[in-house]
Amino acid sequence: MTSTTTTTAPLSPVAPPAGARRPLGQDEVRITGGFWGARQDVNARATLAHIRSRLESEGWLGNFDLAVAGRLPAGRRGREFSDSEVYKYLEAVAWEIGRRGDAELDRLFADTVRRVAAAQEPDGYLNTQFGRPGQAARWSDLEWGHELYCLGHLFQAAVARGRTRPGADDGLLDVAVRAADLICEVFGPGGRSAVCGHPEVEVGLAELGRLTGDARYTAQARLFVERRGHGTLADIEWGRSYFQDDQPVRDTSSLHGHAVRANYLAAGAVDVAVDTDDRGLLDALRQQWTRTVARRTYITGGQGSHHQDEAFGEDWELPPDRAYSETCAGIGSIMFSWRLLLADGDAAYADLIERTLYNVLATSPDPRGTSFYYANTLHQRVPGIPADPSTTSPRASSSLRAPWFDVSCCPPNVARTLASLDAYLATVDSAGVQLHQYAPAEIRTTLPDGRAVGFDVETDYPRTGLIRLRIVGDSEAEWTLTLRVPAWAEGATVTVKDAGAASTHDVPTGPVELRRAFLDGDIVELLLPMAPRFTYADTRIDAVRGCVAVERGPEVLALESVDLPGGLVDVDDVRIDTSAGLRERDGRVWARVQQLRDEDGSWPYSPEPTDGRDTADVTGEVPLVRYHDWALRGPSTMRVWVPTA
Amino acid sequence: MTSTTTTTAPLSPVAPPAGARRPLGQDEVRITGGFWGARQDVNARATLAHIRSRLESEGWLGNFDLAVAGRLPAGRRGREFSDSEVYKYLEAVAWEIGRRGDAELDRLFADTVRRVAAAQEPDGYLNTQFGRPGQAARWSDLEWGHELYCLGHLFQAAVARGRTRPGADDGLLDVAVRAADLICEVFGPGGRSAVCGHPEVEVGLAELGRLTGDARYTAQARLFVERRGHGTLADIEWGRSYFQDDQPVRDTSSLHGHAVRANYLAAGAVDVAVDTDDRGLLDALRQQWTRTVARRTYITGGQGSHHQDEAFGEDWELPPDRAYSETCAGIGSIMFSWRLLLADGDAAYADLIERTLYNVLATSPDPRGTSFYYANTLHQRVPGIPADPSTTSPRASSSLRAPWFDVSCCPPNVARTLASLDAYLATVDSAGVQLHQYAPAEIRTTLPDGRAVGFDVETDYPRTGLIRLRIVGDSEAEWTLTLRVPAWAEGATVTVKDAGAASTHDVPTGPVELRRAFLDGDIVELLLPMAPRFTYADTRIDAVRGCVAVERGPEVLALESVDLPGGLVDVDDVRIDTSAGLRERDGRVWARVQQLRDEDGSWPYSPEPTDGRDTADVTGEVPLVRYHDWALRGPSTMRVWVPTA
Repeated sequence: MTSTTTTTAPLSPVAPPAGARRPLGQDEVRITGGFWGARQDVNARATLAHIRSRLESEGWLGNFDLAVAGRLPAGRRGREFSDSEVYKYLEAVAWEIGRRGDAELDRLFADTVRRVAAAQEPDGYLNTQFGRPGQAARWSDLEWGHELYCLGHLFQAAVARGRTRPGADDGLLDVAVRAADLICEVFGPGGRSAVCGHPEVEVGLAELGRLTGDARYTAQARLFVERRGHGTLADIEWGRSYFQDDQPVRDTSSLHGHAVRANYLAAGAVDVAVDTDDRGLLDALRQQWTRTVARRTYITGGQGSHHQDEAFGEDWELPPDRAYSETCAGIGSIMFSWRLLLADGDAAYADLIERTLYNVLATSPDPRGTSFYYANTLHQRVPGIPADPSTTSPRASSSLRAPWFDVSCCPPNVARTLASLDAYLATVDSAGVQLHQYAPAEIRTTLPDGRAVGFDVETDYPRTGLIRLRIVGDSEAEWTLTLRVPAWAEGATVTVKDAGAASTHDVPTGPVELRRAFLDGDIVELLLPMAPRFTYADTRIDAVRGCVAVERGPEVLALESVDLPGGLVDVDDVRIDTSAGLRERDGRVWARVQQLRDEDGSWPYSPEPTDGRDTADVTGEVPLVRYHDWALRGPSTMRVWVPTA
Repeated sequence: MTSTTTTTAPLSPVAPPAGARRPLGQDEVRITGGFWGARQDVNARATLAHIRSRLESEGWLGNFDLAVAGRLPAGRRGREFSDSEVYKYLEAVAWEIGRRGDAELDRLFADTVRRVAAAQEPDGYLNTQFGRPGQAARWSDLEWGHELYCLGHLFQAAVARGRTRPGADDGLLDVAVRAADLICEVFGPGGRSAVCGHPEVEVGLAELGRLTGDARYTAQARLFVERRGHGTLADIEWGRSYFQDDQPVRDTSSLHGHAVRANYLAAGAVDVAVDTDDRGLLDALRQQWTRTVARRTYITGGQGSHHQDEAFGEDWELPPDRAYSETCAGIGSIMFSWRLLLADGDAAYADLIERTLYNVLATSPDPRGTSFYYANTLHQRVPGIPADPSTTSPRASSSLRAPWFDVSCCPPNVARTLASLDAYLATVDSAGVQLHQYAPAEIRTTLPDGRAVGFDVETDYPRTGLIRLRIVGDSEAEWTLTLRVPAWAEGATVTVKDAGAASTHDVPTGPVELRRAFLDGDIVELLLPMAPRFTYADTRIDAVRGCVAVERGPEVLALESVDLPGGLVDVDDVRIDTSAGLRERDGRVWARVQQLRDEDGSWPYSPEPTDGRDTADVTGEVPLVRYHDWALRGPSTMRVWVPTA
């Protein structure tokens, strides 16, 4: 929390007043295509309209109209937190408008805000589920009511709008400010010493405080973080750890309990630590991140091992078949990691963000952008049943993507993340620019000393490992361009080409700093080794002992039944022959496998350390699928971790 | 369904009119001590009183009084199925009275029946949760209401009483008959074509039909079995498979869905198949049993792999750390297996029953008989938190035994099973007597041809493997004594000693038949090899790949942290050295282990197939604990499956 202090906040979801790095906002980074550009296009073209259509047809937007018409609670539809999906949709639309402008979207945005704003009560309270005759009283069910949670999402939407269209007359920021004022009044010093069962208001208040400069919001976020862990919430079947009310944030050694709640809380706590220069709290959060990544995170970056309580398991409890790995937990992990990256500058945070982006965020939506994974299993034992597109899916554990869920937090969460993704690519500090994620992009910014610097990124990463940066504009003095060599990328090289010559160097993993007075047209090429590789798990992860995974670049691969050639029947009957290595052909990675006979058997426990089966004489080469592309060809079975032969 | 047809029903929970074997009832078998005798004593001395005390203090018995006083629903306490716990308690007490008589218990029994009977409505309806003003209508929530489920338990209690005290004037049988008549009226042919969300009424009706000779009850049980699987219950989050309403029983290949529901239904379906001589249905159930045992059963005999829906997982989905293995599912499995044994006579059913008795049923209650496991994990990663004895435990997944649960199905289920356990030891057919389970016992019965035969069993099995049978009474003609050599007991011998001489023979696993004209005082000794042994799992069980378990006789052993000597820290850091074998010393089994260093680490996935850790130089011998005795010495961690070195 030393080097930079910003004057104008970046057009970015997170804009801390201090920290090792300042994020570059939408006005400084523009993704121009590639893997993520294509997904942003689908998000803009299809997902936003899909979400709006469901918010209308499910009545979740209509709940606000009913509130205005005085027709609640009778006609209310959706779960107690359905308001939040409207707010996440608003946030997504705000970032999309910020990204490329769109008059029609702007009209829809204003229209939606009008309906929401009309439902706000005179004192600032806003929720369609509580407080009216026939409804439970305001703040009467903090464990499950999600009132503060919903408002946290409202604040994030208002911040998105406030940053991307400052001075817009839609009124969302006013709505947010009035709600935030009420929160400070009710839950502030001297008020109710309570917290919400689902953290989220903390990040919302912190960012609203940064946007408005109102220190009360920052202080209120801090109060909520500090209150947590003192058992103000009731005990429940899964214990208070479910909502992180079992131990104070600064005394916690690892993320635990409900995985989305845990990450949202941690993200808010980083905001609080940075805004109040609380190094002890930041240290605790860093340590939690490290231990969680070391012991409670799937190879995909996914988090959450329990279906029952959507929660982290104990250390090393990472079953692939019962992986919950909720899409929203992945997004929460990105939120937490990004805030630590801004505070510390450490490349390890960007490594996890990249892994989670490619293997959780990109896995959730289908290529049309209209159906989604809520949970992201790493092992599908039986082919799933396609969701009925005309209805909502009751099953978070659906093994095929579904258009909408009774609890539909994930689709709008994916949408807001994709719409704001440009703002997660790069940062600056006093020395120069740091590029964290690789996508075709135009980057133009100003260093703290006032110098304009810029470059374009050309790449089809992760299809290939070549990332070419073309400097735009001459620089009179030296500045440092920092590139991230991912931890998996042993053997990377950097080539710098200027008018004079080209020189190539091997570079280790981690940050690579290139300091020079770059001139317009200079080329920097980072070449990451993209050969597919076998990956083994720490043997303390019991559930995948004796197995291997295959990765290529930042992408996790999987064995999917629809790719099995004749004679091979089921992914669970296959053993991978690692001695045969991996081969790339026709744009796919191929592995050599043996098939075991699937015998009926009787009692499956025996005195012999064999599997009680013969290896069938069927062996063959099978292509692997990118994990984010699995289950796109109909019902199938799938394994990320495959037993070795 | 051929050989025997009984005239007088045995004093046994299950008394089929046909089948390969007739069970010997409480009047023919008496357990006189040993492992199970001690547990029956604790059950009689402590558990029954504990249950009654909780039924009173929790108000579940009081609900019946409130019904009589017209004070429902306001004062009702407990879950919607709490009536059933009262009925299971009544069943347990009835068997206990049958086992050894007890005037005080008899008084308590009559008193309880009086309170229950008073709440029955004029048309026979009996339930404290439904049907009154202010309550939901009768049969209006078949998915979750449990009305028929509760009555099924009532019928089993009435059958227990009717068999052990025929003609008793307490009136329970009348109550049951009136309720059964109402069920036949409401749900019979031409009535509502519906089933209960929780199977149980099927076994209850079938046995009540056997006791009373009323064929309508048998026919109604059959109707319920045949209706199931046609989607008359609503779809729910986990699908209709949760309550086995996704496919007809006779088209099902494996038990699936909620594990207690699945076993209760299967048990009732065997009853129906036997009573109606439906060989197709019986074949289907046999096949389901075989496949479930081969692919969906824990080494303990426990069943159910999911916490979320208390359900079976897919084939091979048997995680030890998230094993649910509900005590009641184990009891349901014994119910299902025992009925198939009576129908078929196959020793494999008794093998599974023995395994489940020692490793599920015996694990649930503590030695005092006043706290219980609901779920039975096979791997405890962090020490559990002791339950508050003054309250009910909200957590089925509690890692320490608890006195009572919000859903407290397990304690009375354990109690009724222990009280009737004598009736699960032996059977007869036209050839002779089959002894299935080994405990000190007196066995006196009559063969179908009218000859009296008898023998005493002397053994301290499973402490040692010697089971000595002493024939009581001379026999003029030959009869066959059949002993079960468990599948694990390779190398067993049988010695027959009569006045003349002694001869010893090696016997294979499975049934061993000794046919002769036994004389009073003849001795038959079965010697089972009790050396501890390593057991490996079929490698298709992903979750325990690379691990080994240790068993001794019918008992599964476990590594528990409280047994680790200095220098060894956590069961998860230990690897077992199978090359060093196992040793017995001081009545315990010892294994040689190595300890790995528990390093902090970072990202736990790497290109090298190592565990990223050095093996510490700490090696040592550790004693294993009988699984049913774990967690009796305070909070601890535990593994049944230990990785091999």
